[in-house]
Amino acid sequence: MTPVLDLVGIFVFALSGALEGVRKRLDAVGIAVLAFFTAVGGGIVRDLFIGVQPAALRDTGYLLVPIAAAVIAFFWHPQVERAMPGVLVFDAAGLGLFCAVGTSKALHYGLAPMHAVFLGVCTAVGGGVIRDVLSGEKPTLLYDRELYAVPAMLGSAMMAALYALEVRGFAATLSSAVLAFAFRMLAMRHRWRAPLARGVRERE
Amino acid sequence: MTPVLDLVGIFVFALSGALEGVRKRLDAVGIAVLAFFTAVGGGIVRDLFIGVQPAALRDTGYLLVPIAAAVIAFFWHPQVERAMPGVLVFDAAGLGLFCAVGTSKALHYGLAPMHAVFLGVCTAVGGGVIRDVLSGEKPTLLYDRELYAVPAMLGSAMMAALYALEVRGFAATLSSAVLAFAFRMLAMRHRWRAPLARGVRERE
Amino acid sequence: MTPVLDLVGIFVFALSGALEGVRKRLDAVGIAVLAFFTAVGGGIVRDLFIGVQPAALRDTGYLLVPIAAAVIAFFWHPQVERAMPGVLVFDAAGLGLFCAVGTSKALHYGLAPMHAVFLGVCTAVGGGVIRDVLSGEKPTLLYDRELYAVPAMLGSAMMAALYALEVRGFAATLSSAVLAFAFRMLAMRHRWRAPLARGVRERE
Repeated sequence: MTPVLDLVGIFVFALSGALEGVRKRLDAVGIAVLAFFTAVGGGIVRDLFIGVQPAALRDTGYLLVPIAAAVIAFFWHPQVERAMPGVLVFDAAGLGLFCAVGTSKALHYGLAPMHAVFLGVCTAVGGGVIRDVLSGEKPTLLYDRELYAVPAMLGSAMMAALYALEVRGFAATLSSAVLAFAFRMLAMRHRWRAPLARGVRERE
Repeated sequence: MTPVLDLVGIFVFALSGALEGVRKRLDAVGIAVLAFFTAVGGGIVRDLFIGVQPAALRDTGYLLVPIAAAVIAFFWHPQVERAMPGVLVFDAAGLGLFCAVGTSKALHYGLAPMHAVFLGVCTAVGGGVIRDVLSGEKPTLLYDRELYAVPAMLGSAMMAALYALEVRGFAATLSSAVLAFAFRMLAMRHRWRAPLARGVRERE
Repeated sequence: MTPVLDLVGIFVFALSGALEGVRKRLDAVGIAVLAFFTAVGGGIVRDLFIGVQPAALRDTGYLLVPIAAAVIAFFWHPQVERAMPGVLVFDAAGLGLFCAVGTSKALHYGLAPMHAVFLGVCTAVGGGVIRDVLSGEKPTLLYDRELYAVPAMLGSAMMAALYALEVRGFAATLSSAVLAFAFRMLAMRHRWRAPLARGVRERE
């Protein structure tokens, strides 16, 4: 089941990485590098932490799909930028999917639920952090105060809970992904923001 | 033996990471991320280089202690900041402990003494570098010229020497950690600085 | 065969990392850190992705050669800077060698040709990216538009093709390395640049 959905998530994340590369006026190679690591960076971190060979190095699609996204961004970035509101919806879907799949993989390899949730979140948000570090930016995950890791945490926690209740497979993945997706969409629509430390004022 | 001491080191390092997050006005999630990776990032690098699953993903304390430190920094950062001189002492203790434990683990897995010393230093200073990279800063380890890696190198070298002499266990860890700790404290008190390349002038 | 050639590549890459450290006025420790990770960072990434212990932690030379390069840069950086045109030739040679050796190692461990090419490029260019991230710079690989990854891609692709044709060993490594080297030299001499995304203008 995951293969196709997984590639959709990878495509969307790769597209966001490639667009970032276009915005920063990177060349064709730079755009492809950002597309790739944005899409599969989180999964690579998860797999290294689990101690297995990264899936990105086993499966052809994990390389070809980011390259395809880079090519699309290279030639049609104005059109893609205009479709960004739609891309953000897909990004939220990718977030939901990746946290569910990441948690599930970690549980499958015998990690404790708490660590599996942690790795689910890493899978979902790690690519974006790597994209920002590679392009020399402060990671938006840490700085923009949007709720991005929090929906991933919710989805991952639900996945771990369902796993403990022996609800597995497609139903578990889908419902966890939908929970994270829905929460992320609500957070974007209502501009929910994570709290600053007590007594710290907003930046103007 | 290490468990408790180890968690103390992790707590102190996590606190310094969390404070850095508060200073940069990160949100609650960002503070927790910095706390976690500052505390266990060095150990994760060490374990990946040795080729074993990072201890941080096996042990509950490695996740919960950084979260606790993040919560403390979130609510009581002014008090913690005021206690910083004390925190620096604990940080030096964490440095000593981590280089000794890291070297010992590498030796235990059969690495050569020189590589074990290298990994001991990575364990001790890696978290701080990851903290700086994640928060978009130039790594202070490379730029501030304080003696921070050098005490870790001394402690690690002592650990490797004791190991070669078949002095192991608590006594070896403690004496190596104390050596690194004492040297770090002296370096802070006397503002010892590492030399610049020949002919390079100080920055004003 | 590789041992000696490999150490030459490591030495040249380490020298470029150490010089970068001198230019940024890092202290002795910082210079050594940049020398080491510039030289072996790409190989470490490759080995982690393959799932084997990094060669840099098995072999004494991988630590001592970067330290030697750091010492040379520390004391004689003006002379080395003056020899930079020559260093760039050696850097191109290192690039060629590393992409060939990296691809070959990945194929040896059973990776698919496409992934082996990817890892060959990572081996060749990864150290420079890590150098830039550690020293707090935007990675030049992504920003400078020089053809640096592209020659590595060519050399890696040739290595994979020869491997498929059962041409292996020294002859395959050498011819792939020479291809990448020659292309890199031509790209430098003629200032070939990678294209920006369609419609994106040059930075002035």
